[in-house]
Amino acid sequence: MSWKLTKYELDNDNLLTNESLLSLGNGYLGVRGNFEEGYTDGFKSIRGTYINAFHDETEISYGEKLYGFPETQQKLLNVIDAQSVDIYVDDERFSLFDGELLAFERNLHMDAGFAERNVHWISPKGKEVKIHFRRMVSFVTKELFVLDIQIEPITPVERVKIVSTVNGDVSNYVDKEDPRVASGHAKRLHVTEARQDAAASIVKAKTYVTGLEAACVSSATVQAESCEYSSQLTDSVVEETYVCQGVGAVHFTKFNIFTDTLRHGQDLIDEGKVLLHQVQDKNFDELLEGQKAYLDNYWAVSDIEIEGDQRVQEGIRFNLYHLLQSVGKDPASNIAAKGLSGEGYEGHYFWDTEIYMFPVFLMTNPVIAKNLLLHRYSILGHAKERAKELGHEKGALFPWRTITGSESSAFFPAGTAQYHISADIAYSYIQFYLATKDEAFMKNYMAEVLFETARLWADTGHMQNGQFRIDDVTGPDEYTCIVNNNYYTNVMAKHNLLWAVKIYRMLEQQDEDHLRQLASRLELTENEVEAWKSAGENMYLPYDETLGINAQDDSFLQKARWDIKKTPREKFPLLLHYHPLTLYRHQVLKQADTVLAHFLLEDEQNLDTIKNSYDYYEEITTHDSSLSSCVHSIMASKLGYSEKAYSYFNETALLDLENTHKNTKDGLHMANMGGTWLGIVYGFAGLRLKESGLSLSPVLPAEWNAFKFHLRYQARVLKVQKTREATIYTLVEGESLEITHNGEALVVESGKELVVPEDAV
Amino acid sequence: MSWKLTKYELDNDNLLTNESLLSLGNGYLGVRGNFEEGYTDGFKSIRGTYINAFHDETEISYGEKLYGFPETQQKLLNVIDAQSVDIYVDDERFSLFDGELLAFERNLHMDAGFAERNVHWISPKGKEVKIHFRRMVSFVTKELFVLDIQIEPITPVERVKIVSTVNGDVSNYVDKEDPRVASGHAKRLHVTEARQDAAASIVKAKTYVTGLEAACVSSATVQAESCEYSSQLTDSVVEETYVCQGVGAVHFTKFNIFTDTLRHGQDLIDEGKVLLHQVQDKNFDELLEGQKAYLDNYWAVSDIEIEGDQRVQEGIRFNLYHLLQSVGKDPASNIAAKGLSGEGYEGHYFWDTEIYMFPVFLMTNPVIAKNLLLHRYSILGHAKERAKELGHEKGALFPWRTITGSESSAFFPAGTAQYHISADIAYSYIQFYLATKDEAFMKNYMAEVLFETARLWADTGHMQNGQFRIDDVTGPDEYTCIVNNNYYTNVMAKHNLLWAVKIYRMLEQQDEDHLRQLASRLELTENEVEAWKSAGENMYLPYDETLGINAQDDSFLQKARWDIKKTPREKFPLLLHYHPLTLYRHQVLKQADTVLAHFLLEDEQNLDTIKNSYDYYEEITTHDSSLSSCVHSIMASKLGYSEKAYSYFNETALLDLENTHKNTKDGLHMANMGGTWLGIVYGFAGLRLKESGLSLSPVLPAEWNAFKFHLRYQARVLKVQKTREATIYTLVEGESLEITHNGEALVVESGKELVVPEDAV
Repeated sequence: MSWKLTKYELDNDNLLTNESLLSLGNGYLGVRGNFEEGYTDGFKSIRGTYINAFHDETEISYGEKLYGFPETQQKLLNVIDAQSVDIYVDDERFSLFDGELLAFERNLHMDAGFAERNVHWISPKGKEVKIHFRRMVSFVTKELFVLDIQIEPITPVERVKIVSTVNGDVSNYVDKEDPRVASGHAKRLHVTEARQDAAASIVKAKTYVTGLEAACVSSATVQAESCEYSSQLTDSVVEETYVCQGVGAVHFTKFNIFTDTLRHGQDLIDEGKVLLHQVQDKNFDELLEGQKAYLDNYWAVSDIEIEGDQRVQEGIRFNLYHLLQSVGKDPASNIAAKGLSGEGYEGHYFWDTEIYMFPVFLMTNPVIAKNLLLHRYSILGHAKERAKELGHEKGALFPWRTITGSESSAFFPAGTAQYHISADIAYSYIQFYLATKDEAFMKNYMAEVLFETARLWADTGHMQNGQFRIDDVTGPDEYTCIVNNNYYTNVMAKHNLLWAVKIYRMLEQQDEDHLRQLASRLELTENEVEAWKSAGENMYLPYDETLGINAQDDSFLQKARWDIKKTPREKFPLLLHYHPLTLYRHQVLKQADTVLAHFLLEDEQNLDTIKNSYDYYEEITTHDSSLSSCVHSIMASKLGYSEKAYSYFNETALLDLENTHKNTKDGLHMANMGGTWLGIVYGFAGLRLKESGLSLSPVLPAEWNAFKFHLRYQARVLKVQKTREATIYTLVEGESLEITHNGEALVVESGKELVVPEDAV
Repeated sequence: MSWKLTKYELDNDNLLTNESLLSLGNGYLGVRGNFEEGYTDGFKSIRGTYINAFHDETEISYGEKLYGFPETQQKLLNVIDAQSVDIYVDDERFSLFDGELLAFERNLHMDAGFAERNVHWISPKGKEVKIHFRRMVSFVTKELFVLDIQIEPITPVERVKIVSTVNGDVSNYVDKEDPRVASGHAKRLHVTEARQDAAASIVKAKTYVTGLEAACVSSATVQAESCEYSSQLTDSVVEETYVCQGVGAVHFTKFNIFTDTLRHGQDLIDEGKVLLHQVQDKNFDELLEGQKAYLDNYWAVSDIEIEGDQRVQEGIRFNLYHLLQSVGKDPASNIAAKGLSGEGYEGHYFWDTEIYMFPVFLMTNPVIAKNLLLHRYSILGHAKERAKELGHEKGALFPWRTITGSESSAFFPAGTAQYHISADIAYSYIQFYLATKDEAFMKNYMAEVLFETARLWADTGHMQNGQFRIDDVTGPDEYTCIVNNNYYTNVMAKHNLLWAVKIYRMLEQQDEDHLRQLASRLELTENEVEAWKSAGENMYLPYDETLGINAQDDSFLQKARWDIKKTPREKFPLLLHYHPLTLYRHQVLKQADTVLAHFLLEDEQNLDTIKNSYDYYEEITTHDSSLSSCVHSIMASKLGYSEKAYSYFNETALLDLENTHKNTKDGLHMANMGGTWLGIVYGFAGLRLKESGLSLSPVLPAEWNAFKFHLRYQARVLKVQKTREATIYTLVEGESLEITHNGEALVVESGKELVVPEDAV
């Protein structure tokens, strides 16, 4: 089975894409797959090292600034560059773009957790060497990025020179024509300290506005016949040079420790040295052992095994691997839209977390899932302030895009107006509760989040003719903005409101003291709870009788239909070729909207409505958003459209690997990566998590021979295998469990395997 | 009767306001009412000299830039400052903020066309002088701004020193918190030439991007017992100093000629010198004679005389005077939202021109009105390009705000989305045709504008269930954006479409050759014309049966109502205190929308609907826009709400004089000034201009004894007098005319007076 992604390309477009594909990270630190020695003239590279949530604030410019538009934007920063190592073979500088390449290959090892580059090179003057680059961002010591280079002369070589730098003179990448990439403010970090001491090369840098600091403490070891060492220093760069005799292989290992003031207090350098000291007596292979052990543990539950489709097997592992590399594992951080693999969307956290990535962790790594919820809880204060700015008396309006909680979206129709994010966050808390039954977490965190988000809905909507209506919001589909009664928003708000009531009543029964204290702190009254109930129960959910579908919003169905088939291929994604008004004026979707609502809350409508809606919206959905095809795959599975289900799944699984959205260079599409897992587990296996428990209805795609995955659920580990002949449930850990299989209740007994033959129950 | 506006204030707020109120202009050149000698420390002044349409382009920054967002914005520039004159009395610098003021008064003479300042001052050391400042921007020589200062020592004075500068080191005013004022890019002009020769002080400056140039050629004369002259020069300032003996009065006159490359070719300085030569042998009083003659001619037809209300009389003349000062009289220019009196809205032209100001000129100065239409015709190419950018196959979408035709609005929901501007422009062409029957103009300009705007509507809307619907536009009311079937937009589009058909059919009859040529040039087909007819005839106009009103748009009436009475005064204007989403979510209007449509196209609905709509919308209209109260006054007049009509009219007439919108400092509200005239002529006098001809239904406000005005109509001048007892029509010029008076046809005979007693016809 494939655990390795291999790349051979050397053209600029592919190299840029591969920088993202071969990026390494651990949720704290991320390093793009750049070449240590750099590129040739005219080549573009987005050279990047990122620390999750390490950001500066930049002023947002508006041609016309209206009340409540955010004044500043947060921006994940490219931090100190420790990747750079130049190699000279007898004074010829090694470059893949000069001389002759006898062999070249790059691998990302997803089981072992490192990337490598194998080069067999003849220099312009005829010197032949093999160079083996390896690099790792450690899951064990999150601050560690280590580089390992072995240079093996094949023809006689007198000297091998290695010039290794730690460079604080770094900027972010800018592309002002693409709204998905930053438009300015590239240089946000200035070096405050660059020096060298007996132990290490040290660069410390500070942001301009937030005053956050990051440091890199770096130290190298060289194994060679004999070497001369020298060093150089400028304001922002520390450079070490090793001139080694070319007798036998030269083995260079560079240990880089990254610390920042978000996690490491103020003594970043001392802290870095301590960490460096802990790791630098190990060689690369020894460090790999710890890495491998961590990953073995991860894959044991998270892996999905597919028999009969090698490409998709690689795709799903690739996606799950990058999810693990990107997800923040401390309370300061979440998962950015591009993880730590690039600068697209400026390192911001979106609803992508809750709807597309959280469920993966919830069902495989609930500790990580909980941390994501805690991060949202930590920004609840900001969300309450933002609600006030938006004219609400009470409640919490979560920011559409943010790092530390303040709204960083500069275009409100497809930003702040996406109120649904507050219900999405509430939804993830509810799912967490259903999956874990963590009553303490419910009391201490969930209740407050549900109450404050319920308040938002109560204040945003209004009752008219017995219906609760929500005007002027934007649903998930960004090709139709600022609408009334978006089905997705309304049904998610309903869920939010009624669960807030449910939790309130539950606490009333279980722990009234706690509830009284909380209610007192939040100045929450019984009347409000009654109002939530009324709003939830009377929530207006648009439905079109003629078509038998849920209308995306009040006016969607009266607009002109966009003809996707007649639109030239080069006009996609539409957002880069049409003015928003052109898109708003048409029935055309960037991404699943009502279809997504039908996935998340399937019991709100009957199957006919869900099916009709899917058929209707599919025709006019461009999937220009990477958040779309996975949802269509899941719903196609539900509706028995097995070919479509597989086709959408395939698009999802290979989106980044095949760069189908043409912007993988700006970072990986993390939500889509989560969507791949969802496509299998919620799609083909039909998982749903409800108050009634866990239900599955596995179907094997015709293209596969079998698939297998694990779920964590209420202190259990359940293995699910689907073959042509049967579904096999095994309770690997935990007590016996009642589940629903194809609508029928089944009990999987502790430690036992339950085989349910196809066409039986 | 009052022809004079007098001001005494010396506090900063009032001085800033008075800079606008006492500004001078002639449609080409505008100079704010700044003090020649400047202000004291800590005082804010917006010192400004403007040339209509003289602009630079600045890049628009967007936090998130989407397709079709304008990349650059045009900006009217503050040009070379020739206002500055310092006066020293025996080496004490004259300042109104030092020493003692025995008398101080400023006047704007609206009959004679100049401003003056009378000062009786005792210096800190006890020297007493009277100083009389006068200034004029000439209507005769549009390039001329002349300053005249007489200094009369009362106590013995040895020397009077005058330091006069021409200063090219100027910037624009910036206020980034107010969306109605520019947010940056203050310094856009750099001096390319600053020198002095025998004839004049010369400063020439160039913009950074557009490369437009402006020059000031200035020369002064001094009459005094004897003077010593010297001069100084820096990179951007030319300074002249006159040290005169303090025997008798010192009389200083400074002639400043402003030329620019939009009107004067490339030899700006030579051209300036020629013009200077033509005027500088006249003294100020002689120049005033020409000014007075020009204004006598203007007032003869444009004045409205009101008996019994001195304050309103002053208000209406003040407004009409500033309209004349602001309106562009050459094809390069139009009327900016703030005229030439300030920098608000950056000197841009809006729909304000067509709907609020054009009618004043149309009915009193059709030559000026025609120039406004020609300016719009000159930017038709830009409007066609913009339509393409907005995804339309064909048609012309006029920019929401512009100087030379490119869209300068950086916030499309309340900018580009206001498609109605294209119909507004078509409306003004139609009104021009009705008022002038200028068949040549119709053939050569109007037909093309109507065809191209009709094409826009045909392409924007779509037919559904037999109704033609227009989705995702914004109507005049900017507190509700991006809506479907805005009544105003739809009814104006209908008018546009059906008149395009009418003109097409008319040309088919009258001049088929011309039509064929035009149609061939525009690639216009008979099918398109049929489509316009169908779209116009089947235009959907939202109507609510229950309320008996036209709904502002499809969803307006289902939103929550805003309670204006409960909103604290300090929260107005709402746009400065609430996020757009908060406003969009409520039934609350910035300005007349449906009510305005009912004024412009009153025959589209019956009187009940119009009345019900007025009653409904009035309750929820904030009049936060200065374009609103005049419309409510007109419609209150129509509906017989005479108290309201008068009250709204009063607000309109005195808006700038009483600074009720608190931002007169940024310039006068020109549209509102036009609205004052409309309030009387279309409101109290009930004028309408339709295919059926001219109709009036004059009503005398209870507060007045009589009012009188003139109208130009189809080569006639009609005087209309309304007294308590009668309406008196007099045909001052032209052939006999049939008009409709209170619904009945009447013939006013050439040169005759027709008295229609009250309660008769």
